[in-house]
Amino acid sequence: MKLVRFGNPGEEKPGLIDADGKLRDLSGILADLAGEALGEESLAKLKSLDTSALPLGPEGVRLGACVGKVGNFIAVGLNYADHAAESGMAVPAEPVLFNKAPSCIVGPDDTVLVPPGSEKTDWEVELAIVIGKRASYVSEADALDYVAGYCVCNDVSERAYQLERGGTWTKGKGCPTFGPIGPWLVTKDEVNTENLAMKLTVNGELVQNGSTSTMVFKVPFLVHYISQFMILEPGDVITTGTPPGVGMGMKPPRYLKAGDTMEVEIEGLGIQRQTVAQA
Amino acid sequence: MKLVRFGNPGEEKPGLIDADGKLRDLSGILADLAGEALGEESLAKLKSLDTSALPLGPEGVRLGACVGKVGNFIAVGLNYADHAAESGMAVPAEPVLFNKAPSCIVGPDDTVLVPPGSEKTDWEVELAIVIGKRASYVSEADALDYVAGYCVCNDVSERAYQLERGGTWTKGKGCPTFGPIGPWLVTKDEVNTENLAMKLTVNGELVQNGSTSTMVFKVPFLVHYISQFMILEPGDVITTGTPPGVGMGMKPPRYLKAGDTMEVEIEGLGIQRQTVAQA
Repeated sequence: MKLVRFGNPGEEKPGLIDADGKLRDLSGILADLAGEALGEESLAKLKSLDTSALPLGPEGVRLGACVGKVGNFIAVGLNYADHAAESGMAVPAEPVLFNKAPSCIVGPDDTVLVPPGSEKTDWEVELAIVIGKRASYVSEADALDYVAGYCVCNDVSERAYQLERGGTWTKGKGCPTFGPIGPWLVTKDEVNTENLAMKLTVNGELVQNGSTSTMVFKVPFLVHYISQFMILEPGDVITTGTPPGVGMGMKPPRYLKAGDTMEVEIEGLGIQRQTVAQA
Repeated sequence: MKLVRFGNPGEEKPGLIDADGKLRDLSGILADLAGEALGEESLAKLKSLDTSALPLGPEGVRLGACVGKVGNFIAVGLNYADHAAESGMAVPAEPVLFNKAPSCIVGPDDTVLVPPGSEKTDWEVELAIVIGKRASYVSEADALDYVAGYCVCNDVSERAYQLERGGTWTKGKGCPTFGPIGPWLVTKDEVNTENLAMKLTVNGELVQNGSTSTMVFKVPFLVHYISQFMILEPGDVITTGTPPGVGMGMKPPRYLKAGDTMEVEIEGLGIQRQTVAQA
């Protein structure tokens, strides 16, 4: 299933994209695509619906983030060997974890804002994992039982805030609008994360062109690993790192400015289309 | 006002501690002490209540975390000069930020769990700020307008996970039960954060004995500063760093083990009492 949230910011309703690509309104069935609604039983109920009997959603409506009320937005750093190299950092022996503020989450096609005074706002196409069930100290073998599905994430990053302001990466990862997720939450039964093409264009130019096949730490290991350090709750999102081609790695570096456009795509998970503006 | 949440884990009701120290039940007035209920208008309404007319809460009931549904649990590192010295780190030029997983939040007197295999679980008494109003790019002068109040936080930390496992501090800060907050959320009108005594005992021995007067970056600056990097939402909690006396800084270092007890106190904000167990 391709699940979505649609409507004005803060007022999104749940929906799904049917076999014909039409938006169907699920707001008669569940309150939001969030928390416990992402559990196995709830998703099984949605899957059993006759989608043709569901009301159509409004044409051309805005899509919101494909998960509501995200409790924890966890990110994995340097999880593609070539990206670590372009960042001038070593491939880590174990996953590097950091956090994006949940308040940075926006819809897949919402405007991305360059923070006031920022000169180093950058892009990162990433595969994000959506947790469907409380996970604490889970094994790698069982890890996928705790996953609801996957979505595209643009892990927008301000490199000066991330790397030049002291301490951890937190400051450069959670600025307002730095977390577009969606367009769809695709349930795990429809996704094999082993080898998905990943693309990001800036003003039509292909800058990232990778595949999940070169991820250092794979999805089941990441869920297992993170669950050794914190309880993962339904609706938590883990974004799993980016392949090469970020602006910081270019010679000379290239950063986002007002008026730029991005297209962010992962095979089977849809395309995000963002315009950049100055905050 | 001293606001609390009481009842079994996950089923807490809002309440307040009246002038006679009695627990009064607020569940007829508001659903939870969380999010928008922490705003100025909501708190003013609570303040106007005749507390003697409110039902008494059950005697001896468990207190939960004093804030529900925390969206972002942000922490400031090395914010007391002497603690930075005992940690072998320099006082930072600007605040060090990191995150605690919201899923680590527990009640003030709940059991603290040493993670499986952990040998370096440590304590940190901290003043925590509770946000009452959405804050983005706010000035230092206006910062307190966005604060609902304050509480005690024990920023429990696993030092090996924090410092020896690569990447940022995230891994050692959000383990299950690593975030006791409370007993009370004390509204800002009743708290002057300039010079509050802070104490932590382990098995009755005073190990931390400090004051908020030696904080490097003060409350208004921290709210201003963090709001430059992320939107703060009502119900977000910022824990502001610890004074000297953590286990890691002792010679030899001393860490928590099953059966240990902690008392964690900040002047005017109450006392937490925790027993340690092995996860």
